[in-house]
Amino acid sequence: MIEAPSTALFLQILYLVAISAEAMTAALAAGRREMDWVGVCLLGWVTALGGGSVRDILLDHHPLSWVAHPSYLAVTGVAALLTIAIARHLAQLRWLFLFLDAVGLVVFTVIGCNVAIGLDMPVGVVIASGLISGCVGGVLRDVLCNEIPLLFRAELYATVSVVTGGLYVAGHALQWHHEAVMAVAMIVGLALRLLALRFGWSMPKFVYTRDLH
Amino acid sequence: MIEAPSTALFLQILYLVAISAEAMTAALAAGRREMDWVGVCLLGWVTALGGGSVRDILLDHHPLSWVAHPSYLAVTGVAALLTIAIARHLAQLRWLFLFLDAVGLVVFTVIGCNVAIGLDMPVGVVIASGLISGCVGGVLRDVLCNEIPLLFRAELYATVSVVTGGLYVAGHALQWHHEAVMAVAMIVGLALRLLALRFGWSMPKFVYTRDLH
Amino acid sequence: MIEAPSTALFLQILYLVAISAEAMTAALAAGRREMDWVGVCLLGWVTALGGGSVRDILLDHHPLSWVAHPSYLAVTGVAALLTIAIARHLAQLRWLFLFLDAVGLVVFTVIGCNVAIGLDMPVGVVIASGLISGCVGGVLRDVLCNEIPLLFRAELYATVSVVTGGLYVAGHALQWHHEAVMAVAMIVGLALRLLALRFGWSMPKFVYTRDLH
Repeated sequence: MIEAPSTALFLQILYLVAISAEAMTAALAAGRREMDWVGVCLLGWVTALGGGSVRDILLDHHPLSWVAHPSYLAVTGVAALLTIAIARHLAQLRWLFLFLDAVGLVVFTVIGCNVAIGLDMPVGVVIASGLISGCVGGVLRDVLCNEIPLLFRAELYATVSVVTGGLYVAGHALQWHHEAVMAVAMIVGLALRLLALRFGWSMPKFVYTRDLH
Repeated sequence: MIEAPSTALFLQILYLVAISAEAMTAALAAGRREMDWVGVCLLGWVTALGGGSVRDILLDHHPLSWVAHPSYLAVTGVAALLTIAIARHLAQLRWLFLFLDAVGLVVFTVIGCNVAIGLDMPVGVVIASGLISGCVGGVLRDVLCNEIPLLFRAELYATVSVVTGGLYVAGHALQWHHEAVMAVAMIVGLALRLLALRFGWSMPKFVYTRDLH
Repeated sequence: MIEAPSTALFLQILYLVAISAEAMTAALAAGRREMDWVGVCLLGWVTALGGGSVRDILLDHHPLSWVAHPSYLAVTGVAALLTIAIARHLAQLRWLFLFLDAVGLVVFTVIGCNVAIGLDMPVGVVIASGLISGCVGGVLRDVLCNEIPLLFRAELYATVSVVTGGLYVAGHALQWHHEAVMAVAMIVGLALRLLALRFGWSMPKFVYTRDLH
């Protein structure tokens, strides 16, 4: 971490909020599949901590976050199980959830970029590291729910991650003020995601009906 | 490994029985999906050796068991292919299979805890390591068979692993006699699993029908 | 790498052709699932680079190829996106695609064997390393498309990889001329794959209809 203590603390708090929100959306996905309480907890862990774990494994960056800080297992497990108790009230909180999920996306992305920058990775790998951190948790959730990952079919989710990571990397390369660059990258990414949700923006689809084999 | 030679040998034999049993249940799952012989063998490998491999990758514990001992590939591959030949007689052996599968669960769990203890991991990671060792092979099998993992929906499978790991870690922390702690943890876990199978015990389900998006 | 420069260069060119071809077949699979452009690109990356990445993670062989050479991300991403533009003409190129896919299989296999040989792995692990390099990318593609992996159900794909790897390892163990061994292994594997495609050869299936549980 290259932040001043206050920025590092702020990012840390955002991270805890983000993994909790991811665990809660995973719990709702588990509930739609009628999983049991154990499944809710496990799916929460995989969704909230899976993206960062895959990134660290690919980059050989050990120990993984939840290995160094097992309290993350407790935080996300509690968040997932708490969701069972408050699920009936969550429909009213739909927008809060989507907002926290979007916060999680940009926070995970910036943290992922930071990890790769700390390992002196080239630009392409830094952006890929942010993308993997931000998006792979949701991919694992969808695969375990036996669905084609939403990421591959809808919304600007991955695009938001690439834009956030690209801005962050560009500002870093230009040696602009670190905290300002991080804030701008996250705010732009967050705004893009919320606008995409509000106006239903999406990437064009590729439809191919023939069979190669 | 901290066991006396005889205990280590006993655990080693149980491990070989367990990976063979897991490979055989995987072969039956492959047969229900009409996979070919190669698929039977590959699914056997992934199911029997996948949980330990994922654990070792997450904990950066190299070399993986089958890399250090390629004979495990031979044992599990033969077990999977042998299942094709004897499948017609397996219906009568249903309870033997479920028993060996339960043995595998507690053996994998204790071995997984041992690996994490050997790496000086904190308690939460030790129990998670046992859970991953015991359960991830079956999750990979179900994902490759295009099903929602059984683990997330039914039975006390993960719960048995956590109880076994918790007892083992508690006894270890209290510095009780190592072999006795291991035996008690495995016997309690095995009994819990068999009782759950016999009486159809399961965790409560979380059913959520609304759509967040 | 133990090749003379010219062989290494030739293998490198074949590798670039192979990952491009894999990315393009992945793009067509994405199109059949109506993924958007981001999904096309992501599925291309996972399919083309996933097999080698899983191999390197299992063998603790870092950095991964695309981490050391981020240009591979560009090559495969462009190949996947280009496929969208030229998809309408691809039906006529069906056999070229299947040929390049078969080339990719044997090239990936030989490279995977080389990596394991370079790490002084035993024979069983060397062949497994070739198999993982050659086949796991397609397995990940099928899982992300919510299908049972084709590898487990049809064609001689995995068998071709094992035959290629086995010949290569045998020749290496006998200390025959390195380039000749590599060429023979790849040509035999390629021929086997093309013959299997032409004549519809496949492994026998295992069909099991009872339920163990």
